[in-house]
Amino acid sequence: MALLDTTKDTQGSGLARVNPDLASERLTASFCVPSLTAVLDGGAERTRVRRAVGTYLQGLETTAVFDISTQEFILNTPTISAMKWWPGDMGRSATHTVVFAQLYIHGKCYGVHPFIVQIRSLQDHSPCPGVIAGDIGPKMNFEHIDNGYLMLKNVRIPRENMLNKFCEVQPDGTYIRHGSQQINYFTMTSLRISLIADEVILPLMKACTIAIRYSVVRRQSKLKPGEEEAKILDYQTQQEKLLPQLAAAYAFHFINNYLHELFNKGYKEIQGRNFALLPELHALSSGFKAMISQYCTSGVDICLRACGGHGYSLLSGLPSLYTKILASCIYEGENTILLLQTARFLIKCFTAARAGQPVPPSVTYLAAMKPRKCPAKDKLDFLSPDIYTEAYQHAAIRLISSTAAKLQDLIQSGAERHEAWNQCTVQLVQAAKAHCHYITVKNFVETVEKLENTAGIQNIMKHLCDLFALHGIFSNAGIFLHDGYITGAQMDMVTASYLDLLGIIRKDAVPLVDAFDFTDKNLNSALGSYDGQVYQRLYEWAQKAPTNKQISPAYEKYLKPLLHNKLSKL
Amino acid sequence: MALLDTTKDTQGSGLARVNPDLASERLTASFCVPSLTAVLDGGAERTRVRRAVGTYLQGLETTAVFDISTQEFILNTPTISAMKWWPGDMGRSATHTVVFAQLYIHGKCYGVHPFIVQIRSLQDHSPCPGVIAGDIGPKMNFEHIDNGYLMLKNVRIPRENMLNKFCEVQPDGTYIRHGSQQINYFTMTSLRISLIADEVILPLMKACTIAIRYSVVRRQSKLKPGEEEAKILDYQTQQEKLLPQLAAAYAFHFINNYLHELFNKGYKEIQGRNFALLPELHALSSGFKAMISQYCTSGVDICLRACGGHGYSLLSGLPSLYTKILASCIYEGENTILLLQTARFLIKCFTAARAGQPVPPSVTYLAAMKPRKCPAKDKLDFLSPDIYTEAYQHAAIRLISSTAAKLQDLIQSGAERHEAWNQCTVQLVQAAKAHCHYITVKNFVETVEKLENTAGIQNIMKHLCDLFALHGIFSNAGIFLHDGYITGAQMDMVTASYLDLLGIIRKDAVPLVDAFDFTDKNLNSALGSYDGQVYQRLYEWAQKAPTNKQISPAYEKYLKPLLHNKLSKL
Repeated sequence: MALLDTTKDTQGSGLARVNPDLASERLTASFCVPSLTAVLDGGAERTRVRRAVGTYLQGLETTAVFDISTQEFILNTPTISAMKWWPGDMGRSATHTVVFAQLYIHGKCYGVHPFIVQIRSLQDHSPCPGVIAGDIGPKMNFEHIDNGYLMLKNVRIPRENMLNKFCEVQPDGTYIRHGSQQINYFTMTSLRISLIADEVILPLMKACTIAIRYSVVRRQSKLKPGEEEAKILDYQTQQEKLLPQLAAAYAFHFINNYLHELFNKGYKEIQGRNFALLPELHALSSGFKAMISQYCTSGVDICLRACGGHGYSLLSGLPSLYTKILASCIYEGENTILLLQTARFLIKCFTAARAGQPVPPSVTYLAAMKPRKCPAKDKLDFLSPDIYTEAYQHAAIRLISSTAAKLQDLIQSGAERHEAWNQCTVQLVQAAKAHCHYITVKNFVETVEKLENTAGIQNIMKHLCDLFALHGIFSNAGIFLHDGYITGAQMDMVTASYLDLLGIIRKDAVPLVDAFDFTDKNLNSALGSYDGQVYQRLYEWAQKAPTNKQISPAYEKYLKPLLHNKLSKL
Repeated sequence: MALLDTTKDTQGSGLARVNPDLASERLTASFCVPSLTAVLDGGAERTRVRRAVGTYLQGLETTAVFDISTQEFILNTPTISAMKWWPGDMGRSATHTVVFAQLYIHGKCYGVHPFIVQIRSLQDHSPCPGVIAGDIGPKMNFEHIDNGYLMLKNVRIPRENMLNKFCEVQPDGTYIRHGSQQINYFTMTSLRISLIADEVILPLMKACTIAIRYSVVRRQSKLKPGEEEAKILDYQTQQEKLLPQLAAAYAFHFINNYLHELFNKGYKEIQGRNFALLPELHALSSGFKAMISQYCTSGVDICLRACGGHGYSLLSGLPSLYTKILASCIYEGENTILLLQTARFLIKCFTAARAGQPVPPSVTYLAAMKPRKCPAKDKLDFLSPDIYTEAYQHAAIRLISSTAAKLQDLIQSGAERHEAWNQCTVQLVQAAKAHCHYITVKNFVETVEKLENTAGIQNIMKHLCDLFALHGIFSNAGIFLHDGYITGAQMDMVTASYLDLLGIIRKDAVPLVDAFDFTDKNLNSALGSYDGQVYQRLYEWAQKAPTNKQISPAYEKYLKPLLHNKLSKL
C-alpha cells in the first residue's frame, strides 16, 4: 500500500473521465485518503512459486539410502502412489530439484531429509538416468507454472547433496543432528507465514476493490419509487456481502504484521540455536494460514458473486483471483490438518495453564477464569472493544475447554487416545478457528488503539474493527449464544449495531479500497478500474476477443450448410 | 438414476481391476445398492443453454415502438449500458433472437414484451442492418457457448414478431392482454424449476461421487499408531465435510420432485387461465432456486477442497463442476434478489395468516402458535423427525415474524416503506432461507415415510434425512438457540447425534454415491472412477498432456541459452 493521489488519473487508462458515481464517492468520504498510508505499510506484490506441498511429511515413501562404498545416496520412489506430484517448475523446466526422502544409513531410518537431485541434462534437457519426470497436466489456475511429477529409480547423488545445516551424514555413515528435530517444521512455518500476505490477503484486497468500485457504478432496481435505479452498494444486502470482506482484509493485514514480528523474533532465536519459540510459532502459523486462507477465499467468492453475471466474466478479473486463492487452502498444508495442529497445541497449553504451568504469550488467556455473562446493556455497548474482545475470548475458552473435557471423558471411558482424538476433531477445528478469530480481533483492537487520529483514520479503522468483530459474532451466533454468555436479546443488539455499521462504512467504502492503491494494470479488471468506466471497458475488451475478429469458423462448416438446406436429408 | 449393476465393470475403463479399498466398501455396506433405484427416479442428464438472465426485467431499457404506418416495431438500445449481454449462442451463431423490450404504442409504455428479431443474414451470416452483435469474451466456464452482446439501432420487425400468447398489438395499435400480467413471471418460474435438477443437483451428486470414492482410496497419516495410513474418509473431519453434502444431494433430489409436481399442477391451471397458483409458485421457485444453488455450489466447493491438491487438478473433474455450478447462483435471477422475492411473499402470507385469512398450502404453518421449547431430553430424541421438523418450523416462524415486526416498527416510527424494507433485507434473506430449509426437511421426512423398506432402503434414507436435518441445526446453531427454543445442553445433544450419524453413514457412503449411477465417461474424473484406480489414471492422463509430448519449446528459446551460458553479458 502506498500513497494514492486522488487528484490525478495515475492509472494510465485510455478512458480519462472518472465515472461520476464513483467520483462522488471519493468526494463525500468522511476521511482523507492519502493519509491512510501513514499507518498502513506493506510489501510490494510479487509472484511466487511454491515448491512443496506439505501435509504429512513423515509419511513420505521415497527413500535415500546411503552407500558408504561410493559416498552416495541412492534414491528410489517405490510406487506410483508415492510419486512426487505438484512441485512447481518441475514438469518441464527445472534441471535440479530438492527431494525430500527418508534417509537410511546401515538399514536404519533417520526420517525425512532434503536432497539436491539433478533431474535433467544440462546439455540437452533430457531426463537423467533413472528419472521419470513430466507435467501433471491442467489445473484450475497457474497455467503458467509447469507443476510436475517425479519418480526416481536408483538415482545416485553425492553425499554432499544432502542439505546439512541442521543434520549431516559423515563419510563413515555417522549421523549428526545440530539442534532440535523440530527444525524440520521451520521451513513450513516460514512458508506459511510468507504466503499469507501476497497469496491470500492481496487477492482479497483486489477482489474488494473490484466489487466495491463496481457496486457504486452498477445501478439496479429502485430503492425508492420514482427515483432512478439505485447504486447496488446502497442495498443493505450488498453492503452485508462486501463490507465485512473489506474489514477482514484490514484485519488480516494487521494480523499479518503481528505474525511477521513473531516470526522474526523466532528466527533470531533459532539462529542462536534456541528452539523454545518453535511450538507457538508452528501453531500460530498453521492456524492462521488455515483460518485466513479460508476466510479470504470465501471473501473473494462473495465478491465475485456480488458482481452478478459480470463477475463471472473473466474480464472482471474475479474468476482468476478465486481460482488462484482457492489453492492457498490446500498447498503448504491442507487447512483442516493445520487447524488440528493448532488445536493440539491449544489443548496442551490449556491443560498446562489450568495446572498453573507457564504457557506461551498467545495462550495465557486460557488460564483466566472469566465472568459468565456479557455485560452489554444496549446496542452501543457492542461498539466497545472490551465487550466484544471479551466475548471472543470467552467463546474460544469455552470451545477449547469443552473439547478438552470431551477428550478426557472419552479416554476415561476407555477409548484409545487416537480414537478419542478423532472423535473430537470436528470440535477441535472449531476451537482452533475460535482461537485465531479471537487473536485477530484482539490484534485489530490493539492496532487501532496505537493509531494517531490524523484525518479521521483512527475513527474509520475503529469502525472497520467493530464491523469485523460484530460480523463474526453475527455470523457465528451459535458459538456465543450456546452457554448464554450472549443472550438472544443481546444478539439482537449485536445485529442492530452490525447493520448500523454497514451504513456508516458504506460512505467510505470507495476510499477504503482506493487506499489499497492497486493500479488498473494490477487489477486487470473491466469492472474495477479506477475511473469506473465499467460498461465502455467491458464493451471495448469484449470486442478485442479473438472470436470477434472473424466470422465463426463453425459457420462455414456447420451453420451454412444447415441454413442453405444443403445437408443430407438422411 | 438408474440401476447400477455392481457385479460387472460397466464403466468401460481400461483398468478393469477395482481398487480393493473401494471394493470392500461395497461389500460391507448395510443395504443393497441396486434396489435404491426402486425409489429414486430421475431424469436423464442433458446440456442446456440458458438464453436469458433475468433479475430486474421491468428496468430493461431497450424499446420497441409500434409504427402503425408500416405495421412494424422499431427496436432501439439507447446506451452501451443497456446492451443485451450474456444471451447464449448469440455471440457468433444465432440468426434470430428473442429480445425483451419496453413496448410503446402511441407514446405510451406497456411494459416488457418479447419480440423475435433477426440479427444475422441467412445468406452470409453478416449482421443485419442496425444490429451490433458479438461474443462477450472468456468466462469462468461455458467456453463452448458463445454468449453474446447485442445493440439494436432502429431495427424494424413486422408486427407479427411479437410473441402474443398472452398479449397482442392489433393493426390499429389496440393493446389486448389475455389473462394476468403475472404471466410474465411464468417463464422465469419455469426456467428456475427446470434448471435445479440438471444444473444444480446433478453437479453436486457428481462431486460427491468423485470425492467419496477418492476418500476411500486415498490414505493419509495414521489414525492408530503402528497401523497403515488410514483412508481419509475414516477421519471425522472428512466425514463432516462430505457426508452432509451427500445427504443434501438426496434432500434436494426429493424437493425437486416436490417442485415439479407443484409446477405441473400450476401449469395445468394456467392453461385453463387460472392464475391463482402463480404467487406461491413464483415464491417457491425463486427461493428454492436460490437456496439449492447456493447450497450445492458450496457443496461442490467442499468436495473439491476435500480432495486436497488432486481436487485442484482439472483431471479430478471437480474444478469444472465448480466453475459451472457457480453460474447457477447468478443466472436466471441473482440469488439474493430471488430470496427477497420469496421473503416478500412470506411477509404477505404471514400477515394474512395471523389475520386469519387463507394462505397457500406451503405457508399455512405460519398461522400456527407453537410451543416455545424443544421437548428433546436426550440425543436420541433428535433422531425423531417430529422433533427436528418442529425445530425448523419454529425457527422459520420466528425469523419471519421477528422481521415482520421490525418492518412494522420501522414504518410506525416514520420510515418510508421502501427504506424500512431495505433495512430489513439481511434478515429477510435469512427468513426466506429458513423457510426453504424447513420445507426441504419436511419434504425429506415425508418422502422417507412413504418408502417401503426393501433392502434397508428406508433405514438408510432415514439416516440421511436425520443427517441433513441435524447438520443444518449444527451449522446454523444461532438460529435455534436465539430464543432458547433449543438450549445449549440440547445443542450438545444435536452435536452428539450428528457426529454419531457421520460414523453410521460412513459405512454406506460408497454405495450411496454408486447409486447415482454416473458412468466414468460422465464423471470424467481421474479421482472418481468406479474402479478407484486413482493413481494409475492420474499418471496415465497426465502423461497424455500435450505438454508432455515434446521437449518444452521454452527450453530452446530461453533455458538452453541460459544453461549454455550464451546469453549476452549486458
